[in-house]
Amino acid sequence: MYRTHNCGALRESYVGKEVTLAGWVQKSRDKGFIIWIDLRDRYGITQLVFDSERTPKTMMEQARSLGREFVVQVTGTVIERVSKNSDMPTGAIEILVSHLTVLNEALTPPFTIEDNTDGGEDLRMKYRYLDIRRNPVKENLILRHKVTIAVRNYLSNQEFIEVETPYLIKSTPEGARDFVVPSRMNQGQFYALPQSPQTFKQLLMVGGMDKYFQIVKCFRDEDLRADRQPEFTQIDCEMAFVEQKDIINTFEGLTRHLLKEINDVDVAEFPRITYDEAMQRYGNDKPDIRFGMEFGELNEIAQHKEFNVFNSAELVVGIAVPGANTYTRKDIDKLIDWVRRPQVGALGMVYVRCNEDGSFKSSVDKFFDREDLAKWAEITGAKSGDLICVLSGAANKVRGQLSALRMELAERLGLRDPKVFAPLWVVDFPLLEWDEDTERYHAMHHPFTSPKPDQIALLKTDPGAVKANAYDLVLNGNEIGGGSIRIHDKATQAMMFDYLGFTPDEAKEQFGFLMNAFEFGAPPHGGIAFGLDRLVAILGGQETIRDFIAFPKNNSGRDVMIDAPANIDAEQLKELSLILDTPK
Amino acid sequence: MYRTHNCGALRESYVGKEVTLAGWVQKSRDKGFIIWIDLRDRYGITQLVFDSERTPKTMMEQARSLGREFVVQVTGTVIERVSKNSDMPTGAIEILVSHLTVLNEALTPPFTIEDNTDGGEDLRMKYRYLDIRRNPVKENLILRHKVTIAVRNYLSNQEFIEVETPYLIKSTPEGARDFVVPSRMNQGQFYALPQSPQTFKQLLMVGGMDKYFQIVKCFRDEDLRADRQPEFTQIDCEMAFVEQKDIINTFEGLTRHLLKEINDVDVAEFPRITYDEAMQRYGNDKPDIRFGMEFGELNEIAQHKEFNVFNSAELVVGIAVPGANTYTRKDIDKLIDWVRRPQVGALGMVYVRCNEDGSFKSSVDKFFDREDLAKWAEITGAKSGDLICVLSGAANKVRGQLSALRMELAERLGLRDPKVFAPLWVVDFPLLEWDEDTERYHAMHHPFTSPKPDQIALLKTDPGAVKANAYDLVLNGNEIGGGSIRIHDKATQAMMFDYLGFTPDEAKEQFGFLMNAFEFGAPPHGGIAFGLDRLVAILGGQETIRDFIAFPKNNSGRDVMIDAPANIDAEQLKELSLILDTPK
Repeated sequence: MYRTHNCGALRESYVGKEVTLAGWVQKSRDKGFIIWIDLRDRYGITQLVFDSERTPKTMMEQARSLGREFVVQVTGTVIERVSKNSDMPTGAIEILVSHLTVLNEALTPPFTIEDNTDGGEDLRMKYRYLDIRRNPVKENLILRHKVTIAVRNYLSNQEFIEVETPYLIKSTPEGARDFVVPSRMNQGQFYALPQSPQTFKQLLMVGGMDKYFQIVKCFRDEDLRADRQPEFTQIDCEMAFVEQKDIINTFEGLTRHLLKEINDVDVAEFPRITYDEAMQRYGNDKPDIRFGMEFGELNEIAQHKEFNVFNSAELVVGIAVPGANTYTRKDIDKLIDWVRRPQVGALGMVYVRCNEDGSFKSSVDKFFDREDLAKWAEITGAKSGDLICVLSGAANKVRGQLSALRMELAERLGLRDPKVFAPLWVVDFPLLEWDEDTERYHAMHHPFTSPKPDQIALLKTDPGAVKANAYDLVLNGNEIGGGSIRIHDKATQAMMFDYLGFTPDEAKEQFGFLMNAFEFGAPPHGGIAFGLDRLVAILGGQETIRDFIAFPKNNSGRDVMIDAPANIDAEQLKELSLILDTPK
Repeated sequence: MYRTHNCGALRESYVGKEVTLAGWVQKSRDKGFIIWIDLRDRYGITQLVFDSERTPKTMMEQARSLGREFVVQVTGTVIERVSKNSDMPTGAIEILVSHLTVLNEALTPPFTIEDNTDGGEDLRMKYRYLDIRRNPVKENLILRHKVTIAVRNYLSNQEFIEVETPYLIKSTPEGARDFVVPSRMNQGQFYALPQSPQTFKQLLMVGGMDKYFQIVKCFRDEDLRADRQPEFTQIDCEMAFVEQKDIINTFEGLTRHLLKEINDVDVAEFPRITYDEAMQRYGNDKPDIRFGMEFGELNEIAQHKEFNVFNSAELVVGIAVPGANTYTRKDIDKLIDWVRRPQVGALGMVYVRCNEDGSFKSSVDKFFDREDLAKWAEITGAKSGDLICVLSGAANKVRGQLSALRMELAERLGLRDPKVFAPLWVVDFPLLEWDEDTERYHAMHHPFTSPKPDQIALLKTDPGAVKANAYDLVLNGNEIGGGSIRIHDKATQAMMFDYLGFTPDEAKEQFGFLMNAFEFGAPPHGGIAFGLDRLVAILGGQETIRDFIAFPKNNSGRDVMIDAPANIDAEQLKELSLILDTPK
């Protein structure tokens, strides 16, 4: 060992002891006759001292020559500091150094190794190994470790078994695009990397392994939106002999355990609302319920006047923005511009100021009187001092627009407190969703999701109305987990593939093994998968996942540190019987 | 929940209670007026009873119709058995069924779901989901889970952090062949799947994360020898500010913990022997030390007579086979045939019978007298009743041959007791090994392994003699872990790449990021990686890994259950700009 203690360990009780530390030079202060050096490792910072009275001259010179991020080993005596620093755990002591060894030198780092670095995103990614030395990134990775250990022990104590499923599997066109892996031993054929272990965990249920989980990498070759990664990590779970409520109870327990264990937060029973209710109340299937601003539907009380914008709309819906009557006319004009941006897409916005004196002032005073507006206030829950924002149009679109506005305003008003945790379950998702491009129904969750048994007949007459035993766990406006009760009989599964446009041959070729398995005694089963990256980010009080991943890729799917992907040898291509079809 | 209890839970204390169970029909016995059914789940078997006095007739018929592996749910009363079965945990009770629901039917399984199945390897692999229902496979997977939980908690308690490293990385020609993944977003370029997270864990050390581990899948596109898998799992570990002995102590602690926790075996301090000593004493760098039969080198006492076979040999070496003087002449002839098989490759074998009366009878009595043979017995440690087997030839070859013979005889003599655990460390491995094919030195461990500092000069004059700070952990004749102290400065790393035949440009292109990282304050570091599949198999008392992997691949790298790898769509190839170069 190069050290007897780490740089976060020493306290006043060690005074007088000889210790050896090793770490990185965080900074040094040279007063000529005395030099202080902050020595840093994963565990903290300890101050080293060299002074002309007690330190040999050669060592003074050596100490003076140490640059930032040099790796050094020191032996010395723990002494009490003259001026203690109560902000640092080791702030009561310093080390009077008697031996100094430079273990490795360092070039000046391209950005400062400080909590608030001067390094931009690109530079930090290229030198990620230096970025990881910074406390915020380091603490995120440690948090991630704590979360995974807590998940594993909680589930293991509940008799779940972690089973590793294979990474080299078979490509299936359904869902997102697969990454594929050419096989050298099976010429012309390819493996695919799993988008999730879905079919394998179902086969484990058929295999009797009735409580399964796995923390596992998954892969999707998608055009990367911001904050998506081509490889990401799931907490993947499945149970047999369960109904929807059993899975919800089990994983509500897990989530509550994590909130307590990691964030020391107690959360009562999570609300459970249906998908339809979520859309109606929040315009969103992953509502942030840390704050109110619930939707008030105004059709009945806003379509009786001569205001054609409303009268022609499928839905007129508003929210009460708390305290926003202080917004100036200019502020409101900017807000209207904001909802009219193409990303939101509203045509305009009606607003009502709820004055302190009980009066209202709206942008549609020409059409609506005080009595009308008082009803709007009642429905949206607006109080004196609030601002009511009303959008109208086709129901689905306007809900999305008002949801975007609601989130934006909550952000501006500081209502999205990262220290507050408000989980909820959204249940009874639609089984299918209509895809405009392909003009057919797609599975909203995935093709293995079970329709609600009493709605199977509805599949023939009104497929879009069929609800599934599918549920999402939502935390602070993010979907952190989603799952469903699965189909467990061959006939229903074949019917689903048929509805999803598979020919019987395609279904057999791609999922024949699963449908065959269902014929050998498949138990009722269902499960859930959590997005670990996002879960950890939210528990860490943040919403971007990148700094909770040790070595993330950029938006082009590149690892800029190792410079991958890259060209491969002609020899490798030849062994795989592949030719590149690249433009000259 | 489909059940109130599982099939392993009920005891006599539950008599009189109403319970609901769900599971699979293991077997049924129909006596006409009474039917017993064994209901099985992951946790055990519970006996159900239906009888004509207490069971309605329709339910009797229903019970009679249940086939093997049907999935059923039953509600009933726990009653005391008339004839108890003390071999079963639930053998004191049975369930008098009042409600019976068939949850799913089952075709007759293609092999019996019993501990000793009638299914061959191929059939079991194709229907792996049925194979997993069998106790031996199920228990292996549960053991694997227990081992990984124990590893994670032990290391986590020692302040190790599990960090996920990326799966989509860069291909490097050194070492085994990579699996590659074509990139759609970066046309013509490829990711590679990691053969190990080696460079990333070293970068984590540079990043200050001084105790890292990860249980992680690794990939090698090798022609599969028996019992190798293209994807396999490592317990990958790295530490900074450590020397070889620190790593050995830490992971000896982990291994001792596992042996205690999993097998309830206490092992004293593990022996530590050098590679050279292992080769001399056992002819093998992963010796099985559960038994003796250590090599006795006989050159000095066997090359003074007219026996040219010995006189011309670089090494004459023998082992004493305990009790094997009972072997008939025919047995010994067969043994000689065995060592002459091409897989072993010896030209012949000299033997000496050590008779009970103290006399010797050898195949070379013509050349050697009693006094000679007594010395051989002394050196090999042979006692009355033993058989001495002697091989001769070029030192390296003959050591390998005698090691193979030693292992074979130990197997035959039942000396390889799977319940005995004899770990040891083999240290000071050679840095380089000569490769006959390419006529150059290859890194024996990998190119990041540090030569012993005092031997760097020797690299120029006698590269093959240079030893490394590299070590293996051996358990019962299997290498279960291996690692080294790494190079942590750019100059030494560049020199190593040079010795291994990399041009400076190649080194820079492939490992430039690592060598750059070494310039920004890399700490001394080293690590180890355990092969989890093999470790679990050995802890489970077996040597083949396949049944400790949920969904293994066959020797052609195929998953015969899902039928992968497979052809992919022309559209997928086009998106990847790839053309198949397959023979017409």
